[in-house]
Amino acid sequence: MSATNHYFDHNGTTPLDARVLEAMLPFLSQQHGNATSRHAYGRGARHAIDQARAQVAQAAGAHPSQVIFTAGGTEANNLAITGISQAAGIGHIAISSIEHPCVTRPAEAMQARGWALSRVPVDADGNITAAAVQSVLNAAQNQHSLLLSVMLANNETGVIQDIAAIAETARSHGVAVHTDAVQALGKIKVDFAALNVHAMTLSSHKVNGPQGAGALIVDKRIDIQPVLLGGGQEKGLRSGTENLAAIVGFGAACELVSAELLQRTARLRQMREQLETGLASLGAQLFGAAAERLPNTSFFAVPEIDGETLVMALDRKGFAVASGSACSSDSGEPSHVLLAMGVQPDLARGAVRVSLGVNNTTEHITAFLHTLQSEVNRLKRLTAIAV
Amino acid sequence: MSATNHYFDHNGTTPLDARVLEAMLPFLSQQHGNATSRHAYGRGARHAIDQARAQVAQAAGAHPSQVIFTAGGTEANNLAITGISQAAGIGHIAISSIEHPCVTRPAEAMQARGWALSRVPVDADGNITAAAVQSVLNAAQNQHSLLLSVMLANNETGVIQDIAAIAETARSHGVAVHTDAVQALGKIKVDFAALNVHAMTLSSHKVNGPQGAGALIVDKRIDIQPVLLGGGQEKGLRSGTENLAAIVGFGAACELVSAELLQRTARLRQMREQLETGLASLGAQLFGAAAERLPNTSFFAVPEIDGETLVMALDRKGFAVASGSACSSDSGEPSHVLLAMGVQPDLARGAVRVSLGVNNTTEHITAFLHTLQSEVNRLKRLTAIAV
Repeated sequence: MSATNHYFDHNGTTPLDARVLEAMLPFLSQQHGNATSRHAYGRGARHAIDQARAQVAQAAGAHPSQVIFTAGGTEANNLAITGISQAAGIGHIAISSIEHPCVTRPAEAMQARGWALSRVPVDADGNITAAAVQSVLNAAQNQHSLLLSVMLANNETGVIQDIAAIAETARSHGVAVHTDAVQALGKIKVDFAALNVHAMTLSSHKVNGPQGAGALIVDKRIDIQPVLLGGGQEKGLRSGTENLAAIVGFGAACELVSAELLQRTARLRQMREQLETGLASLGAQLFGAAAERLPNTSFFAVPEIDGETLVMALDRKGFAVASGSACSSDSGEPSHVLLAMGVQPDLARGAVRVSLGVNNTTEHITAFLHTLQSEVNRLKRLTAIAV
Repeated sequence: MSATNHYFDHNGTTPLDARVLEAMLPFLSQQHGNATSRHAYGRGARHAIDQARAQVAQAAGAHPSQVIFTAGGTEANNLAITGISQAAGIGHIAISSIEHPCVTRPAEAMQARGWALSRVPVDADGNITAAAVQSVLNAAQNQHSLLLSVMLANNETGVIQDIAAIAETARSHGVAVHTDAVQALGKIKVDFAALNVHAMTLSSHKVNGPQGAGALIVDKRIDIQPVLLGGGQEKGLRSGTENLAAIVGFGAACELVSAELLQRTARLRQMREQLETGLASLGAQLFGAAAERLPNTSFFAVPEIDGETLVMALDRKGFAVASGSACSSDSGEPSHVLLAMGVQPDLARGAVRVSLGVNNTTEHITAFLHTLQSEVNRLKRLTAIAV
């Protein structure tokens, strides 16, 4: 990591807040315990988890009893898609065309087991409209539509969907609604009650909490079957010894979100504006520019510059950015999100994502823009020679 | 936790070794990263995970390429049962009658989806014999037997099974073998290659590592389908951002197991002998006494004394012990393991489990025996008055 000084990949993972680590440390030493045990150690663990449950609920506009802890966002999304579909029985599932693979793949697995699956298209700006949802549900009206899953904010473009409007449309069809809010929490206001969905996914390590904790927020009126079976923890919806320290850390991170969200949002937005002004003057094309977006995310391409090449060049200069989502960065395929938005594959191959965090500074952005300009110039010269 | 000074519930969870925490701390601060990212932070995370993979493999007699990291033992057992069954297609699954619920429940879920399920009985000493396995597989010979799961050491009694002999029998029927080695690792030698099984489950927090990490060791010749779907981490067998610090901690804990196993085993065995000598003089009945058992586990009952009552009485005196497995301690039912061994329900309701750890001392045991005697005397007086 010697050369990398500036971390701009906060949609991939975030550094652990030092205050969160401090809250976790007692549970990584003398206050160990299995929360199912009935002795004092077990009761201490249970109490700490209950406190974290309240902190997570508070940050997400939910009631503590609605919080089901998981090992992370992937597991929570699997639980939502598989668990709600299985409980409802064979029927029709709709997901947006820009979901994370941990929504898409479980939905495809249900399809392989007999469920029908359709995808709600996204427009050129990256928006999923209520009208598009309406249209997909109408087209499936002779089937039993049971679940719609649309993410609150996209991990690559940062585009924010109007989930409340989408949920209203889906509810009028009697369809349960799940939203993956992993990228939204800590960056914009996330309010489970106001979004009016039945289930919502959160992840700790995207909000300066530890890896290894996440949650599915669940409206108790929705039936859901567990994916992981065993000791019956989390009301039978997620078996396995609770990861005490990680859950405590997730709670502490959420308490900081509740306290600091407005300042964080303002600070991120200011830095992003500086970044995007610079990107525009470089001739970069910003994806989802016309849409409402997360205050920390800029997904762009410099025409004729390969994204992977640029990412590796920036890495050598000490800047950690992504060419797409971390989860798909091995595939070599252009972003499925951009392709769904109708971006030409050649331009999509140039995609670079900068996702800022609260510890970044305007000086970091200035340094980044300077380096980006010189690397783009260098790569253009190389391309010119090669041609 | 004020009153509890002596922790005797190491089969429930173990305290984190201070050396393990030290190994983890850099990854809870500056060395954060998403191992799928291609920049320096991501590569650093990947490198650390690869090192942990080698440490876990070394402690378990496996090759690093056979280690699939999960969030814990429950998830690994679910992956083994569900993943192997699904990959093989509809057929017959056999499990022992004393498995942990995180084996039993997934097997029952497969049964609900059309697979046949049978249980291999246990004898009065707590042993699963190769003959019993043979008999169950013979009885199912007109079905396609695809999977046998028998735990290496039982979480309640500590009884150790002859998995190598069981595996040989199962292999002669063309059946894949899984063993849950969660309770064995760190207490006795665990050797994946020598056991000759196809899949084996491990858990970090049972070996003084952090909660939130586990592994399924998998022979690559066995087909297995993932349970958690998404970004395709762990060769597609376990999607979700890797829990970097927990995996590093699991690796460090395994390295300590490799280095210290012989001393730990000897030390645990010595303390357990002291404990069981005292228990015998108290008139306690030891379950599985005639079987080979883990060096740290004593599961016993004092006739006519209720186990839950005794556990809570000991808790008030500062001793953390269990009335059964942590995962089932809420149920109020007598231990399914003891019932399967033919223990009468009245005696089984008296069951108390002491599971020692390397930080316990002979002085702890002496103090415990003293308190146990006085609490047993007190409870017997109360019972006499009540009658």
